[in-house]
Amino acid sequence: MIWHNGVLREGTTITLDASDRGLLLGDGLFETVAVFNRRAFRLAEHWARMVAAAARIGLPIDRTAFDDATSALVHHSTDRNGVLRITVTRGAGPRGLAPTPGAVPTIIATLARWRPDMAFRSVALATSTVRRNSGSPLSRIKSLGYLDNVLALKEALDLGADDALLLNEAGSVACSSAGNLFVVNGSRLLTPPVEDGVLPGVTRRLVLGHAREFGLSVAEVSLKPEDLRNADAVFLTNSVRLLEVVRRLDGADLRSLNCDIPRILSQKIAASIHNETGLVLQPLC
Amino acid sequence: MIWHNGVLREGTTITLDASDRGLLLGDGLFETVAVFNRRAFRLAEHWARMVAAAARIGLPIDRTAFDDATSALVHHSTDRNGVLRITVTRGAGPRGLAPTPGAVPTIIATLARWRPDMAFRSVALATSTVRRNSGSPLSRIKSLGYLDNVLALKEALDLGADDALLLNEAGSVACSSAGNLFVVNGSRLLTPPVEDGVLPGVTRRLVLGHAREFGLSVAEVSLKPEDLRNADAVFLTNSVRLLEVVRRLDGADLRSLNCDIPRILSQKIAASIHNETGLVLQPLC
Repeated sequence: MIWHNGVLREGTTITLDASDRGLLLGDGLFETVAVFNRRAFRLAEHWARMVAAAARIGLPIDRTAFDDATSALVHHSTDRNGVLRITVTRGAGPRGLAPTPGAVPTIIATLARWRPDMAFRSVALATSTVRRNSGSPLSRIKSLGYLDNVLALKEALDLGADDALLLNEAGSVACSSAGNLFVVNGSRLLTPPVEDGVLPGVTRRLVLGHAREFGLSVAEVSLKPEDLRNADAVFLTNSVRLLEVVRRLDGADLRSLNCDIPRILSQKIAASIHNETGLVLQPLC
Repeated sequence: MIWHNGVLREGTTITLDASDRGLLLGDGLFETVAVFNRRAFRLAEHWARMVAAAARIGLPIDRTAFDDATSALVHHSTDRNGVLRITVTRGAGPRGLAPTPGAVPTIIATLARWRPDMAFRSVALATSTVRRNSGSPLSRIKSLGYLDNVLALKEALDLGADDALLLNEAGSVACSSAGNLFVVNGSRLLTPPVEDGVLPGVTRRLVLGHAREFGLSVAEVSLKPEDLRNADAVFLTNSVRLLEVVRRLDGADLRSLNCDIPRILSQKIAASIHNETGLVLQPLC
């Protein structure tokens, strides 16, 4: 099923203007939202992030379409859980880079499978040769231009790792190919600030909130790769995979002295999901 | 007319798999080729650039399709001149960033209008707040992720300029939103090296060749914004606009002491076009 510009249809294809700027220039945004028990988890926060990104790139977006696409796909799905993707492009336009005022955005939404084994995994990272660009606003918004991340992930997979560690142009840690990164040191929880070229993740925000409630000392600070090697624990967050513990970096085991805090935070994520959707998940163990 | 996966069709729309990675992730490449007098100018060089880019991102591409799209569109066009765009995406795939081996690329080609007044103009540049990322391979290939350039151009237009000047993360000059940049100092012609986050432009290469033949001392060296302010002349190159003299930067006139060399180089570009296509163009005057 595909929701396309207000219409829910069977099939796998859409009719798209060949001049759609999303296709030709990566001129658009998207959100990936986990659906648990037929409820789009933290949908309002995904919408808020898209609003902020749309304001940054000057793209008009429509809450009604966002909500309609979500409810139509969730309602018609045979699965209770899923991964919703909502894509908004700047729509069709004349040749050239300059956006034309009044262009009508294209909105496409689909729902893919989600299985519990996609969440709360352990992963090995490989440091990518591709650098994250903190000097671009796109490093902080979920735009369609994901080829850097695709290349970084491919490179990591080719090295036998599960995901890539991306550093920014200054050599500071930014993120994985599709997740935010956290470091635990004693009772301190550290994560790179958005300014370092980091997407303000919805699960990142959830974890920061849970960590503060739990009494951890939380800070958004620039991190170097050695901070990962010296950490008590390292983990990633992502709306679909929730929380992943990083066990290895560049072929070497991390110290991972203490996985209590990632475990507790994964329990708190699972509790939030249970409270908001009723779904019972097995957290990290 | 649209050439799509081997078929030339009337109309403005295509049927696209909603999971096409070009649309969802900017996972693809394109070339923009000027057509003069029904001949695609320097098509072999555009093809060679796409081959190199495709090898870098692991995308299989097909010379026959590239040539067929070009000849079909040029043959059926009512205009003798045009701007050909050939887009190749990684095609449809399952959710997630990792490319699936064996995916069938999507190829889309269109031909837009080209008019002589699009070439050999004078332009004012405004330095962008968006930085070019020399730490990404995408800074050196023509991938679909052009939103940085879109934002940079929009910012420049909003400031009353014609185009953006993009610096890389180190503050070195990279390019405009869609063109390579050159500086003339006496009989020296300087342009940033590809390593600084620069697309290896087809017209850039043509100009470097003409400059060497003319006896200029040519060097690919990192440039700072002050090198533009101190230059005898500054110009941009691009396959559609050919050569554009930069008259102003950030609201101030450039010294532009000597426009002889841009003028001579524009004459040489016009002569190459005449030799290869028969079209007579009025060079920069």
